[in-house]
Amino acid sequence: MKQTIITGSGSCIPDIVKKNSDFAQVEFYTEQHKLINTPASEIVHKFQQITGIDERRYAADDLNASDLGAAAALDAIDNSGINPEEIDLLIAAHNFGNVYKHTIQTDAVPSLASLIKHKLQIKNPNCVAYDVLFGCPGWLQGVIIAHVHFKAGMAKKALIVGTETLSRVIDVHDRDSMIFSDGAGATVLEYKDTGNLNNGILSCCAQTHAAEEVNYINMGCSYKPDYDERVRYIKMKGRKVYEYAMTHVPAAMKTCLDESGVSIHDLKKVFIHQANEKMDDGIIKRLYQLYGINEVPAHCMPMSIHMLGNSSVATIPTLYDLVMKEKLQPHTLHTGDVILFASVGAGMNINAVCYRC
Amino acid sequence: MKQTIITGSGSCIPDIVKKNSDFAQVEFYTEQHKLINTPASEIVHKFQQITGIDERRYAADDLNASDLGAAAALDAIDNSGINPEEIDLLIAAHNFGNVYKHTIQTDAVPSLASLIKHKLQIKNPNCVAYDVLFGCPGWLQGVIIAHVHFKAGMAKKALIVGTETLSRVIDVHDRDSMIFSDGAGATVLEYKDTGNLNNGILSCCAQTHAAEEVNYINMGCSYKPDYDERVRYIKMKGRKVYEYAMTHVPAAMKTCLDESGVSIHDLKKVFIHQANEKMDDGIIKRLYQLYGINEVPAHCMPMSIHMLGNSSVATIPTLYDLVMKEKLQPHTLHTGDVILFASVGAGMNINAVCYRC
Repeated sequence: MKQTIITGSGSCIPDIVKKNSDFAQVEFYTEQHKLINTPASEIVHKFQQITGIDERRYAADDLNASDLGAAAALDAIDNSGINPEEIDLLIAAHNFGNVYKHTIQTDAVPSLASLIKHKLQIKNPNCVAYDVLFGCPGWLQGVIIAHVHFKAGMAKKALIVGTETLSRVIDVHDRDSMIFSDGAGATVLEYKDTGNLNNGILSCCAQTHAAEEVNYINMGCSYKPDYDERVRYIKMKGRKVYEYAMTHVPAAMKTCLDESGVSIHDLKKVFIHQANEKMDDGIIKRLYQLYGINEVPAHCMPMSIHMLGNSSVATIPTLYDLVMKEKLQPHTLHTGDVILFASVGAGMNINAVCYRC
Repeated sequence: MKQTIITGSGSCIPDIVKKNSDFAQVEFYTEQHKLINTPASEIVHKFQQITGIDERRYAADDLNASDLGAAAALDAIDNSGINPEEIDLLIAAHNFGNVYKHTIQTDAVPSLASLIKHKLQIKNPNCVAYDVLFGCPGWLQGVIIAHVHFKAGMAKKALIVGTETLSRVIDVHDRDSMIFSDGAGATVLEYKDTGNLNNGILSCCAQTHAAEEVNYINMGCSYKPDYDERVRYIKMKGRKVYEYAMTHVPAAMKTCLDESGVSIHDLKKVFIHQANEKMDDGIIKRLYQLYGINEVPAHCMPMSIHMLGNSSVATIPTLYDLVMKEKLQPHTLHTGDVILFASVGAGMNINAVCYRC
């Protein structure tokens, strides 16, 4: 019987390292446009304690999200060993398209998926390429969409890319700007019979909460008093997002794990969207609590946020790639290991996928 | 046996009528930034002859693509009679998100699908909402994605919306700006057993050509000599798009129709993306020629471009809605009629769906 198998992973970690100390000269304002008088060093220290972020990566001026995405895609294709001309479905997840440096416009015409296909020089017209916008969980939703295509007999090989250049949509006068980063991750999925009935994607789930939650993460004006109201930046109601994630993400993860039939005791690792270390710690703790377990197992949750920040759709595929290539010691994965992917973001959207390696 | 059935349609045709004569005072420039000295009345006359467009619609200043999309969605839900809380999948197709009047930024955070879900006050978190970017064929691709979900047993009811405000991304100094318009269309799809094995979606196909074709429709600077290079507009290589469409669209339509097993003689109507009258006439003519038929049957291809222009992802669902509600006489559809949807656009992307009413 065929299963949805991840046969390759790749990532593109941009070259420019932006350290917390690089924000020491910035004037930060509140949502009410009041200057925050706390010394910058203190702001940055507190920021580090909550988010866990020491540094993050920004793309070079001449690179756009589609370039990062193509680099990650190439890496994933090489890793899988597939012939790129055999890819049936190419999904690019993002939220802001290409934002050329020193401009404010999103460019997604043609779609990033088309631009990535172009850059990979894939000629096969039956490799259908489109973009999916689902907030930070977009890459994982792309994985689910590919899995659905496989199950329906509508595709056999898929390339799912998550790419974003958040450094170009941040309000530098908002402390939250320090959270966001650039990056891309990619994964090759294949529908194949590995001789093992129990591996591949075991279960998946997704949710959209769009009542009051719809504006927890959205676009808004700069916090600087003399802002231009025609220019908007990514804005986050941090407290609301935190409470939302704490309530809904562990529950969705449990639903997904229960549906897979795998015991929590057999869960090897959780690959969670790198949004904020404190929040991610809280989510994993609550997941285990839902099973009556008060101690989260050691090395259960690989984290890359310390060095890479929050690159939205790119965090999970990048994290997975780092672990698979043993670049995030002591984390390793072996055939048969059960892992859980989970994400949360603008929409508000949540998803989870349970997978046996 | 269950089939994918269209159980409701809706549209939102914006109020503002922009006539060809409204362009009489505009200074048009060539791609090389040279003023076109032909009298505006002559330019407009020639434009009308090629495109078939007499007038087009623009959204009121305070309405955005998500507002138009929500109005069309509400119309489709009313038409279907379903309980909106039973929708499993809500896909919004677009290319530019919300572009607030007098700004140049795309806003798709949260996604338009989330904003539409919010506006429809759908509370069910299992109604998963995301956006798909696939050029003008985006709405039809959403239909295909829903069909795939149905076939995989991952959804039973879907709402597919196509919405766009192209009037906010056009270069007014480019003659092609007269082609584009605003609008939204929506469709409710259900996976159900109607007692008739042969109705519903019979076949579908999609393609992406992203070699040289990737830049046939893209974003570029204004044709005006003193343009701001940081601001970009929708740009089209008209001749290239025309040749591409003539070569690939009839072939894709034939592939789709042949796969359905329906004879060309039993094809009742073709709902084709309203891009350009001359191009659409050429496509349908060539489709019939591929079957050795030199005469296209009368009333085979409903057209709305004369009065609505090209509203990208919105053209087909709007056209279908007009015909279903008998607002585009003499066109009507009856149970058992076989129709073909087909689209082409930025990517370059093509798709087709064969459907029995």
